[in-house]
Amino acid sequence: MTPSASPAFPFAPLNRERLIAPGPVEVAPDVLAQLAQPQMHHRAQAGIEKLMEARAKLSRLLGAPYDAVITTSSGTGAFEGALVSTTPVGAKVVNAQAGKFSERWGEMAGRLGYRTELVARPWGELLDPQEVAGAARDAHTLLITHSETSTGALHDLEAIARAARAGNPDLIIIADCITSYGVAELRPAEWGVDVIVSGSQKGTATPPGLGFVLFSPAVQARLIQNPGRGFYLDLTRELAGQKAGNTPQTPAINLIYALSTALDRLLAVPLEVLWAEQRRKTDALIAAGTALGAPAWAARTSPAVAVLTPPQGLTGRQVAGQLAALGQRALPGQAPHEDTVFRISTMGYADRYDALGIAGILEDCFEALGVEFQRGAAVQAAWAALR
Amino acid sequence: MTPSASPAFPFAPLNRERLIAPGPVEVAPDVLAQLAQPQMHHRAQAGIEKLMEARAKLSRLLGAPYDAVITTSSGTGAFEGALVSTTPVGAKVVNAQAGKFSERWGEMAGRLGYRTELVARPWGELLDPQEVAGAARDAHTLLITHSETSTGALHDLEAIARAARAGNPDLIIIADCITSYGVAELRPAEWGVDVIVSGSQKGTATPPGLGFVLFSPAVQARLIQNPGRGFYLDLTRELAGQKAGNTPQTPAINLIYALSTALDRLLAVPLEVLWAEQRRKTDALIAAGTALGAPAWAARTSPAVAVLTPPQGLTGRQVAGQLAALGQRALPGQAPHEDTVFRISTMGYADRYDALGIAGILEDCFEALGVEFQRGAAVQAAWAALR
Repeated sequence: MTPSASPAFPFAPLNRERLIAPGPVEVAPDVLAQLAQPQMHHRAQAGIEKLMEARAKLSRLLGAPYDAVITTSSGTGAFEGALVSTTPVGAKVVNAQAGKFSERWGEMAGRLGYRTELVARPWGELLDPQEVAGAARDAHTLLITHSETSTGALHDLEAIARAARAGNPDLIIIADCITSYGVAELRPAEWGVDVIVSGSQKGTATPPGLGFVLFSPAVQARLIQNPGRGFYLDLTRELAGQKAGNTPQTPAINLIYALSTALDRLLAVPLEVLWAEQRRKTDALIAAGTALGAPAWAARTSPAVAVLTPPQGLTGRQVAGQLAALGQRALPGQAPHEDTVFRISTMGYADRYDALGIAGILEDCFEALGVEFQRGAAVQAAWAALR
Repeated sequence: MTPSASPAFPFAPLNRERLIAPGPVEVAPDVLAQLAQPQMHHRAQAGIEKLMEARAKLSRLLGAPYDAVITTSSGTGAFEGALVSTTPVGAKVVNAQAGKFSERWGEMAGRLGYRTELVARPWGELLDPQEVAGAARDAHTLLITHSETSTGALHDLEAIARAARAGNPDLIIIADCITSYGVAELRPAEWGVDVIVSGSQKGTATPPGLGFVLFSPAVQARLIQNPGRGFYLDLTRELAGQKAGNTPQTPAINLIYALSTALDRLLAVPLEVLWAEQRRKTDALIAAGTALGAPAWAARTSPAVAVLTPPQGLTGRQVAGQLAALGQRALPGQAPHEDTVFRISTMGYADRYDALGIAGILEDCFEALGVEFQRGAAVQAAWAALR
């Protein structure tokens, strides 16, 4: 008999280990199996067809006739490609920020030589559409984050885009939809968003390594090449190539096979069902947290991630650490808010019944941390939210 | 937009597909990854060591100094090997039966030329230790099933073995522990059970293809070779070979690598914790079923599988069919009781939070079937059973 690893949770080594962080997420076995096929070649006919197939599915997942470029990069790389391929260096770029990821786009624009104007709100708060539109009145490009993964806020992309467009019809709007694409309601053609950026390890439930940039038909006429910027991330060249079935650079072709398989699951239902189901799952996590005295940080919550504020006396790192002791990979907040919140997510290959299970995990976690609550309350609240 | 596959469950295509049948069960990703390593060779030093390692872990999982033989066969093949390697053809064999699997051992013994005496109880009922002991008084071998997977009954192996042994000290007792090994409390050295038979796709959470036969030190002195029976399944030769690190036949070596990894998870806690946790998970399924008007069939339930009787007007096949529509692979009853019961299990790579999720699945399933119940009752009952 071996002694138990954790006296508090002698059963914990028997737990199924879960990724419940907002990316990388759980990946379906049939998607993983795609990766390990005999090595594909991106110039072979099958590889070309797989690229075209995945690109078409990416457009379908947006529900709009946008053209997709698949980059071999993280979402950040894809965002840089979107920026340098639409916006001449020296142009005015407005960066609306209220969290870690939106701050990154401002830093990026500054480093790349854009005249960057910030519209900042404290973390956890919402961006004001009129304030953003005011700053963007004379800008070339607006950088906006839809789902802010560091705070769990879902910014009102529709209202912001409509207001900004009304004050500046020529504005190019690039939206960081890294955790909202395939997750939250997103209608860029109706809302007037020109460029959508995302990455593979979030809503599309694929391993990390691919970025996605989806261009509206109108913005494609305005794509540029910036002297001194973006050779690898020259999406103007990349879009032309990929439309013709080839990638100027060598793509992570195994990941593209996996992506195409993963997208089938998402596209098996209408987009409204997909969005509603992800909303329901995250509402269940938020309801569970609220029942435990850990409500959501943001007023308008993203369906991508539940960013929850622990009860007084507990820190985000303590909660994430206790979840890790249970075999569950969640995240604390992002610096400097590591202890303000903890973050859990059901993006990826996790369904409503997994969300219910996570409510149980939260109860066991909070009990171990000495929080007083009515046992069963979080599970009941989660299940009520799922129905 | 594609139309939803199932109008009742537009979200069902988004579900994570689960094996919730009593085998094959969910297998952990790191166990599956073992299968796909560069092809191993069973005569290479690494292959020999892996065999010895897996055999040692199988003994540890029994908590007794029994010696394990790993067969490349199903559990049925392993059982046949146990029988022909301990019992001379023509000897009297008592077969205690109360369900599909125990019936199989009687059929097998008859076919192989044993004088077979049946002690039969209707499916779902329990075997009576005194009745079995009475029949076994002049028998060579007793064939007994611990966990009857067709009815969900856990027979009282301890009481039966003690009673039979008291009346016949030389009796060889072979126990079908196919779904109890690594799942239910099992102390063969204390209880006086000579031979334990199981298979890889149950409690050990490994893909199918391997059988296990564990021999007590005492019974090893009585192993025989039966003329005309058991060349491939000659476990007398196999045990001698495997003790020396080689298998007379070619084993499914990839599965042995997988098995060794899978056993690590089970052996990470004391056996009592392992048994208690599996008991708790199955109690949660039974509690959920009971809350929905689908109580357990058997009076003394096995922790391996919840065999539940659907409410009046519903059949086992209807329930299993509706679970399949939700992407969940359960089972109806076994012929001729397909419609008497349905069967769900959390053996394998599924934890207490998965059991909670399955309670939610049952609610959605029963609602779709038009059963009236208090929404949330099954989830609440399951969670109460898990605490």
